[in-house]
Amino acid sequence: MSSAGVKEDCLGWAARDPSGFLSPYRFSRRAVGSDDILIRITHCGVCYADVAWTRNVQGHSKYPLVPGHEIVGIVKEVGSSVQRFKVGDHVGVGTYVNSCRECEYCNDGLEVQCDKMVLTFDGIDADGTVTKGGYSSHIVVHERYCFRIPENYPMHLAAPLLCAGITVYAPMMRYKMNQPGKSLGVIGLGGLGHMAVKFGKAFGLKVTVFSTSISKKEEALSLLGADHFVISSDQERMKAMVKSLDFIIDTASGDHPFDPYMSLLKTGGVLALVGFPSEVKFSPASLNLSMRSVSGSITGGTKDTQEMIDLCAAQKIYPKIEVIPIDYANEALERLIKRDVKYRFVIDIENSLK
Amino acid sequence: MSSAGVKEDCLGWAARDPSGFLSPYRFSRRAVGSDDILIRITHCGVCYADVAWTRNVQGHSKYPLVPGHEIVGIVKEVGSSVQRFKVGDHVGVGTYVNSCRECEYCNDGLEVQCDKMVLTFDGIDADGTVTKGGYSSHIVVHERYCFRIPENYPMHLAAPLLCAGITVYAPMMRYKMNQPGKSLGVIGLGGLGHMAVKFGKAFGLKVTVFSTSISKKEEALSLLGADHFVISSDQERMKAMVKSLDFIIDTASGDHPFDPYMSLLKTGGVLALVGFPSEVKFSPASLNLSMRSVSGSITGGTKDTQEMIDLCAAQKIYPKIEVIPIDYANEALERLIKRDVKYRFVIDIENSLK
Repeated sequence: MSSAGVKEDCLGWAARDPSGFLSPYRFSRRAVGSDDILIRITHCGVCYADVAWTRNVQGHSKYPLVPGHEIVGIVKEVGSSVQRFKVGDHVGVGTYVNSCRECEYCNDGLEVQCDKMVLTFDGIDADGTVTKGGYSSHIVVHERYCFRIPENYPMHLAAPLLCAGITVYAPMMRYKMNQPGKSLGVIGLGGLGHMAVKFGKAFGLKVTVFSTSISKKEEALSLLGADHFVISSDQERMKAMVKSLDFIIDTASGDHPFDPYMSLLKTGGVLALVGFPSEVKFSPASLNLSMRSVSGSITGGTKDTQEMIDLCAAQKIYPKIEVIPIDYANEALERLIKRDVKYRFVIDIENSLK
Repeated sequence: MSSAGVKEDCLGWAARDPSGFLSPYRFSRRAVGSDDILIRITHCGVCYADVAWTRNVQGHSKYPLVPGHEIVGIVKEVGSSVQRFKVGDHVGVGTYVNSCRECEYCNDGLEVQCDKMVLTFDGIDADGTVTKGGYSSHIVVHERYCFRIPENYPMHLAAPLLCAGITVYAPMMRYKMNQPGKSLGVIGLGGLGHMAVKFGKAFGLKVTVFSTSISKKEEALSLLGADHFVISSDQERMKAMVKSLDFIIDTASGDHPFDPYMSLLKTGGVLALVGFPSEVKFSPASLNLSMRSVSGSITGGTKDTQEMIDLCAAQKIYPKIEVIPIDYANEALERLIKRDVKYRFVIDIENSLK
C-alpha cells in the first residue's frame, strides 16, 4: 500500500450538519511525512465528545466532521525518521495529534496543555487543515502522538484507554491515588467512571461508587469489584460517610449538587472534576472548613498515557465494552445520550467499515 | 494578682442579642489550671467574624457573646506544669483555645482541623462552658494554644497576625508560594488581603492586587508595595493577564464571579479561597481545561502560626492597622461592614478597657 494510494482513499463516517447524523464520507489524509506513521484503524471508541462535536454543542464544529479519538490500529507505513514504530506494530491515538513540541508542557510530556495542541478531530492542524478522527479507515499521525499497544493487549479493549482511561488515570496519579488503602469515591458509572473503579481496585484502594440509579449496584459490586455502592439520594448512608474519602473523581456531566459529595471528603481531600456539567456550584464552607479542593482535569500527556497503557497490559486491566459495527454509530450516540451503555461502545472499524 | 481575684473580675464587652450592640459586661474566667496561662490582654484585633457572630449570622450565637480572636497580651500567671511561658512574656491567642490533643491533626500541629477544636469565643469548651473572646481584660488559655510574640515585635501590630495573618500565610505555604519569582494575585485588600501582599513581597513574589475600587490603587502600590493593581472590571487588563498567575488568594467575602479570575491562573494554578461569599460558582471549563484547582482554607495550626509570627519578627513584616479604644468597637464593626478600614482595627484594650 503506497501513501499516495491511501491519501485519496480514506473512508470515514461524517456528520454533515448539527443534526449530527453520521453517514459514509470519502476524504484524503496527508501524505506520510518523515516523522509520521500511517495507521490502518481497527477499532475506535465512542466518547461523549463525539455527540457534542457532531451536534455542534459548543458552536464551532466544522463540517463534514469525522469524530473519534479513541483510535487503535496497525502501523502500515512509517516515515523515514520514525524511531519508535515499525510496520505491523499495534498503536493507539488519543485526543490530540499535534502540539508545539518546544514549550514547557511539551517538554514535560504534558502536550495536552500546550497552547498549540491540536485535537484529533475538528482541530485546525499546523498546516491549516481540519483534523478528522477515528471513525475512518486510516489516519496519518506524527509518531510523538502515537502510543504502543503491547501485543498481548486485545486491540478492541485498548480503544477506551485513549480517552476514558487516561482522563481518570491522570488526576488519580497527580493526587497519588495509587497508594493502597486510600479511599476513592467515583461519581457516575459510565465510560470514565468504570475505568476509575478498575484503576482504584488495581491500586488497592477502597472504592465507593455513587450513582442515582440502583440498577447499577449489582454490576458495580460484582462485575467491577467496587467495595461499596451508594445511591446519592440516600441521606442516611451519605451522612455515615462524611469525612471518609481521600479523593472523589466526578465523571458526571449531568448537573448535580456538589456540597453533599464534598462533605464526604476528609480534611484536605480533593474532588477531581473530569465531567462538564453546566456549572460547578457549592458553599464556601464545604471547601474552606476542611481545607478541601476541587480540581479540574482533561485527559493526560503522552508520558502518562503510555505509562497507563503499559500498566493496563501488565496488570490485565480491561475496560468493559460493547463492540458495534460502524452502521450502528448513530444509534450508539443516541444511546450514549441516554447513558445506555455498559460501559463504552467500541466500533469494529476493521470488520464493518467498507 | 491571684487567680481567684481575677476569676471573678473579668471585664469585657459583650453583645446581648442579635442587634450585635456591644456594651460592658462582667464575667468570670476559669481558675488557672496546671497547663494554663493567665494573660492580661493588651490588644485585640477586630475580625469580620466579630460582626458575623455578634449579629448571629449563622444562627447559633450564644449571648452574652464576647467577641475577639486576635488576642495579644502579657503573661500574668502560669500553671504548675507550664513549660513554654513565664510571667512577663508577650503572647498571642488566635481563633481556637482547645482541641483533643491526640488526633492526627493535633499530632501534626494542625489543631484547627481537630473535630474537638474549640473556638476562642462562642465555642463550647471541654468543661461545657461557653468561651469568651478578647474584647476583655484577661483570658485563661492552655499553653498549647498560645504563641510567643518576640520582644522586638510591637504588641499592637501582632494582633492581626493571629487570624488575618495566619489565614493567608497557611495556604500560601501549603502551595509553596514562598518561592521567589512566582506570581501571586490577591483579591480584596482588607485585613487578610493586605497581609497576603506583605507576605508575597517578603517572599519575593510578583504581586498583583485585584480590587473593584480605584481608590485602593495608590496605597496598594506605594504603601504595600504590590507590583500591579488591576480593577477587575477592566476587561482589557484582565485579558492581558490570562494564564499569568501561579496562585490567587481570594479574600473577598462579598459575592463575585470566579471565572474571570480563574482564567488568569496558569496551567495547574490554584485559587485559594479564604473568604465566605454566599456561594462559589464557575464553569467547569475554567477548571478542567487547564488543570486548575479551587482550594479552601481557614486559619492554620499552632505550628504554622508560631512559624509565621517568628518570620514576621525576623523580617519586620508589620500589618497596617488603626488603633481604636474599646468604646469605638460598635462603630468599628459598622465601618468593617462598609469595608472602611485600613486595614485592620486593633482595640487598645490595655489603655481603654476600664
